Amino acid sequence: MLESLLTDLYELTMGEVYLRDGYNDFAVFEMSIRHKKERNYYVSVGTIELARLITELRFKDEDLNYLRSLAKFSEDFLNYLKNFRFKGDIWGIPDGRIFFAGEPVFVVKTNRIDGQILETMILNRLAFQINSASKAARIYSVAGGKLLMEFGARRAAGKDAANLVSRATYIAGFNGTSNLLAGKLYGIPVYGTMAHAFVQTYSSEFEAFLSFAKAYPDNAILLVDTYDTISGIEAAVEVIKLLKGNLKLAGIRIDSGDLVEMSRYARRKFDENGLNDVKIVLSGDLDEWKIDYVVKNGVADAFGIGTEVALPSDRPCIGAIYKLVEDSGGFKHKFSKGKIVIGGSKQVYRFYNSEGKIRKDVITHESVKLDGEPLLVQLVKDGEFVYNYDINESRDRFFKDFSSLPDEYKDINMSLNPPTEYSQELRIM
Amino acid sequence: MLESLLTDLYELTMGEVYLRDGYNDFAVFEMSIRHKKERNYYVSVGTIELARLITELRFKDEDLNYLRSLAKFSEDFLNYLKNFRFKGDIWGIPDGRIFFAGEPVFVVKTNRIDGQILETMILNRLAFQINSASKAARIYSVAGGKLLMEFGARRAAGKDAANLVSRATYIAGFNGTSNLLAGKLYGIPVYGTMAHAFVQTYSSEFEAFLSFAKAYPDNAILLVDTYDTISGIEAAVEVIKLLKGNLKLAGIRIDSGDLVEMSRYARRKFDENGLNDVKIVLSGDLDEWKIDYVVKNGVADAFGIGTEVALPSDRPCIGAIYKLVEDSGGFKHKFSKGKIVIGGSKQVYRFYNSEGKIRKDVITHESVKLDGEPLLVQLVKDGEFVYNYDINESRDRFFKDFSSLPDEYKDINMSLNPPTEYSQELRIM
Repeated sequence: MLESLLTDLYELTMGEVYLRDGYNDFAVFEMSIRHKKERNYYVSVGTIELARLITELRFKDEDLNYLRSLAKFSEDFLNYLKNFRFKGDIWGIPDGRIFFAGEPVFVVKTNRIDGQILETMILNRLAFQINSASKAARIYSVAGGKLLMEFGARRAAGKDAANLVSRATYIAGFNGTSNLLAGKLYGIPVYGTMAHAFVQTYSSEFEAFLSFAKAYPDNAILLVDTYDTISGIEAAVEVIKLLKGNLKLAGIRIDSGDLVEMSRYARRKFDENGLNDVKIVLSGDLDEWKIDYVVKNGVADAFGIGTEVALPSDRPCIGAIYKLVEDSGGFKHKFSKGKIVIGGSKQVYRFYNSEGKIRKDVITHESVKLDGEPLLVQLVKDGEFVYNYDINESRDRFFKDFSSLPDEYKDINMSLNPPTEYSQELRIM
Repeated sequence: MLESLLTDLYELTMGEVYLRDGYNDFAVFEMSIRHKKERNYYVSVGTIELARLITELRFKDEDLNYLRSLAKFSEDFLNYLKNFRFKGDIWGIPDGRIFFAGEPVFVVKTNRIDGQILETMILNRLAFQINSASKAARIYSVAGGKLLMEFGARRAAGKDAANLVSRATYIAGFNGTSNLLAGKLYGIPVYGTMAHAFVQTYSSEFEAFLSFAKAYPDNAILLVDTYDTISGIEAAVEVIKLLKGNLKLAGIRIDSGDLVEMSRYARRKFDENGLNDVKIVLSGDLDEWKIDYVVKNGVADAFGIGTEVALPSDRPCIGAIYKLVEDSGGFKHKFSKGKIVIGGSKQVYRFYNSEGKIRKDVITHESVKLDGEPLLVQLVKDGEFVYNYDINESRDRFFKDFSSLPDEYKDINMSLNPPTEYSQELRIM
């Protein structure tokens, strides 16, 4: 559920003045990511659900009473809010699809007051999900098919963030999450290992590992770095040898120290003991650069990633904006210093080369039809939610788009301009 | 409400094994910020409310059914969860107090399974609030008493984050927020100006400003940088002159360009026109360094800060940890490479110099009483919440502690070691 008051005061004071002045004509607002060479590409997540939530948005009496207490609103406007039902159209780039800076990812076409009121909640809900999914995709791009587990719940900023990060990373190529609430809500596979506190509870690592492996013979991942990683690996070898035959899947996790060196040491130790199928899981502030290095130089079967998808340290906040782009007066361009907005209600058409790779995206006015693939789809029509959300379809869209992304865009060390152009009628010079 | 499943799978699989093995003895877990010279000081926020929420935590039937569906838990353990009621003690450094890296800020004393289960939700709920408040305090420290408005709702990661950031920054010295939901929930003053879309709606800036100022004569803050800041300022001068006498508070906001130059230009323009009491509000990706520069070189009466308190770009994620520190077997030290945990259930005593400034904090075992001021207070006793939460008391605690913080710790360009020491019985070498 969206909370009607999760909005900035100015969205409503502007609404008050629009209502007084009779400025409640049709208007188009769009959310996009400002082009600052932050990411070569973005992954859309959350647009479908948000569109549905907007159709359910209501101002409750207690919210109206709070607004009344501020002495900033007329009864006319409070009455307008009381009767608020979203009646317009929403278009979006659906979950899982790859898009680029400058492209509209969420477009609201409705009367001016309603479109303005939604600004804060749209940015609040979508920007961090897209950021997390886009970071996850970069990690996926270097992981060489290794298993990726999202461990970010403890780093994410509260409950909503934790769940939506789990979903975003799963859509963008991860295999599952440690977050049980996201597992329950979204049907995402859940994964887990053990914490250092578990090892410390027992009189020895051997005893801790033995007890855990007996309890979880289907999937016993033993954390080996509580005291000393080398002796931890040795204790794991002993336990796995002892229980071999009874263990369906066994592995170890290393969470600190030199992950390349330690993973190679562990692999050698296991192989020497005939334990070739024991898995090695690595974690500990991993990002795409560290994983790229480990994949190229170490041996690992899986990675646990938390902090860097919950709060990406290289881009904690992407430059998401939500702007008026067209109204009854025409296109609304904006040229504040360094902050350009191209007006016009847009569609984006994608063109592929003969190998099925993305050649370019052309951003047009919606009235111009091109023969490329349109990225924006209608999610809400006349206030009715008309799309369908399925997390696995979203994930499939990601895999399909990722395979069509040219290799240079996947290079985590390159910073490229988006392969986008504006069609003639949107060009401003 | 806390969701019982907002936890990592491993917290519960460990619980399963503890229950089987009869390892459910008394244990002490503590949350602290790992010392990585991230911040000279931190501001505690959220500990009081979280303690209360933990006393209300329950596993609902639908949650237990989901856990059962994973085929990882015995009926014994599911039954244990069904009957879960927190029965232990919780101590915390209450909201608003300043503390340092390495100090326990939230301490859970209970049986081992319950203490472990809470890990993920404690870190998820507290870490980002403390990060936001600590960033806000740095901004407060350079703002020279100017009005500080939190505009972060659109940048925060979801609804919870938006509200808790509004509260955190208010406790840490800000004057209010633009977020209406936080205003309603916590009684925080709300502020707002106008967006570029408002200006674009009218045929001219003059017309837009006039209409807004007539509607809000008590507090009309006009956004002047939609097209060109200089002509925007001129339009604002015209409107304010026209309505002078009818305007109780008028001001302008500048959100882009050279804020120092433009604020000085605006001040001169207003003063030339006898409008000395018109306020100048600045915004646009402001952080403590930019605000420090503007306060020293420009003219501003107020700042709007969003991104940098919602998602601090220099420290998107503080190194919060939650660790087992003591159980029936004694202190639990941990020495993983680069990740040291000092065992022992702790208290922190603060000592002041003769000018009332913090001299040092001594971290002791709780059994050792010192004559300093204890920072950890009891929030929950035998499962009962025994403290009281008041946002204004929390804010007062912040102002009091901030005034006792030595100046060098407030220097945003210094990176200091915390003024902490361990008492003898906790020293490990």
